[in-house]
Amino acid sequence: MAVLCKPAIAVPEYIITRDDTLELARQLHDDHRQLKKVLRLIEHTGVVRRHLIQPIDKVLEHPGFDARSAVYEEESKARVPAVVRKALDQAELDPQQIDLIVYVSCTGFMMPALTAWLINEMGFRSETRQIPIAQLGCAAGGAAINRAHDFCRAYPDANVLLVACEFCSLCYQPTDLDVGSLLSNGLFGDAVAAAVVRGRGGTGVHLERNGSYLIPHTEDWISYAVRSTGFHFQLDKRVPGTMEPLAPALRAVAEAEHWNAGELDFYIVHAGGPRILDDLCRYLGVPPEAFRFSRATLTEYGNIASAVVLDALARMFDEASAHDGQRGLVAGFGPGITAEMALGTWTS
Amino acid sequence: MAVLCKPAIAVPEYIITRDDTLELARQLHDDHRQLKKVLRLIEHTGVVRRHLIQPIDKVLEHPGFDARSAVYEEESKARVPAVVRKALDQAELDPQQIDLIVYVSCTGFMMPALTAWLINEMGFRSETRQIPIAQLGCAAGGAAINRAHDFCRAYPDANVLLVACEFCSLCYQPTDLDVGSLLSNGLFGDAVAAAVVRGRGGTGVHLERNGSYLIPHTEDWISYAVRSTGFHFQLDKRVPGTMEPLAPALRAVAEAEHWNAGELDFYIVHAGGPRILDDLCRYLGVPPEAFRFSRATLTEYGNIASAVVLDALARMFDEASAHDGQRGLVAGFGPGITAEMALGTWTS
Repeated sequence: MAVLCKPAIAVPEYIITRDDTLELARQLHDDHRQLKKVLRLIEHTGVVRRHLIQPIDKVLEHPGFDARSAVYEEESKARVPAVVRKALDQAELDPQQIDLIVYVSCTGFMMPALTAWLINEMGFRSETRQIPIAQLGCAAGGAAINRAHDFCRAYPDANVLLVACEFCSLCYQPTDLDVGSLLSNGLFGDAVAAAVVRGRGGTGVHLERNGSYLIPHTEDWISYAVRSTGFHFQLDKRVPGTMEPLAPALRAVAEAEHWNAGELDFYIVHAGGPRILDDLCRYLGVPPEAFRFSRATLTEYGNIASAVVLDALARMFDEASAHDGQRGLVAGFGPGITAEMALGTWTS
Repeated sequence: MAVLCKPAIAVPEYIITRDDTLELARQLHDDHRQLKKVLRLIEHTGVVRRHLIQPIDKVLEHPGFDARSAVYEEESKARVPAVVRKALDQAELDPQQIDLIVYVSCTGFMMPALTAWLINEMGFRSETRQIPIAQLGCAAGGAAINRAHDFCRAYPDANVLLVACEFCSLCYQPTDLDVGSLLSNGLFGDAVAAAVVRGRGGTGVHLERNGSYLIPHTEDWISYAVRSTGFHFQLDKRVPGTMEPLAPALRAVAEAEHWNAGELDFYIVHAGGPRILDDLCRYLGVPPEAFRFSRATLTEYGNIASAVVLDALARMFDEASAHDGQRGLVAGFGPGITAEMALGTWTS
């Protein structure tokens, strides 16, 4: 048994709307050859508002990588503990009952990872194992769930805490002016999410099987350039079309469990952008409302990277429509291009 | 069953001896207030020579973080595949039989991690799971072994590839002039290591149990400052004294298996520096020759970060003195301060 309990989410207090974003794009890139295309792409994201850890004028002035690293550390320490506490409460566990912390975050880098500080500050046991992952990008939310599932298979009494801390605004790069970068500037948002996978007991998604899939020879489609100015997100224009090669991988994972990926009761997938969701509906042959949780995350928060799947899942808990035994799919997509997929059954 | 098979190691072709290092320290830091202390500390490391991916004059001229990131990518792609191939051969497996790649490296950062490229270039299956870890530093060699062990507990037929790629010379920072930094400049070396943990069969260390321990409130004793010039390694002078609080954790893991940590047949521990090894002998009450493999790694290669434990283990295979059923301990130490500990039994 391994049950993914209700995630906790926090989005920061500074809000930027779609209109703000479009207006900013017009102001900052008035002379850009492809401005019209950029504005159209941003309008089509479906993102209505995003939350940021700093006011937008602060975000826009790049203070250097040293300062950004300091902001990442300060803001993660300020914002993560409350979300972790809520996730633990929702799973009815205390820190002493956690055996592993999987901490995923691709938008800032610390060594040691925040796991060490969390263990010290929040009363986790000194024996708590740590898996910090910085290099799976948006797929890391799915990877965190899957590694937690594996850990509970190995140690059936174990409980695992997942934390996704994504401050995408700290990767804003004013000198990156290609269409992919300008689109990203209008797509990504900041958020912190956490959840517990309980080895025994718990209400939520009973994890049945997981799998990973790397689309061959696409490792440069989503990547970082690691530079003196920090992480530069590089998005290939072929990325929105990746659901065609990924849909068969989702089908294959479902088939291994004798399930049909097109006939599940719930879908919690990474909302990388609107076409990802539209295409996946089409290739799996499911109605658009099947992806309502992911779409709501995208609309209200933007693409919050590895935190998307946890936020979308929290929305499903809030809707309270799932019944015991209903089957579903959780999938994160990110650089590699990698899909991290999980199959689960609702259990209360 | 999960058996850690013989690791493969490669050290690069550029060599710097202890005398070269001392001479360089004298030249570069002629006017340093604590030069004598630094020279004494470097002499006491026990490091006789180290291997570097570039000639020393190239290492000393910091070309900027952009260029260093490019060197990391280029050199890891040039040097990792042959080591992986050898590790697979030694485990008598081919890439198609690997289910998970754990890639640990704290001395360069790529997103996606090298795992994606390795899967594409070396014929691993698209379904291969990836755990890239950049934030556990020198403890990551032990962590890689332990996560591989956990994965084989979860999936008894699985095989896991571990890769440790450490180019410590790419973290040389000419502007860091504190004693800890100057000592580090004389301590760390470059190396690539890989090994396979087989779920079924194999000759090597049958992994019985693993554990992690974080020394409370030491998270700033070993850390990176993440800056526009790259990763700045920060070493607190209290670090060499950490075996006193860690020895009881090693004893506790052994006791959980009803073993006595002071009476094992082999010890494969991270050779962070000479005092780490001396103190651990003393606190566990074992003779110095018990740590001969780690000491040989330190002497011949320097501290090669997460690759130390794999290199020390390869030396034990080469000595061919282990008998079936003999018991041993593998332990990596690194930032957190974290110990990643494994207990195993020799099996052929």
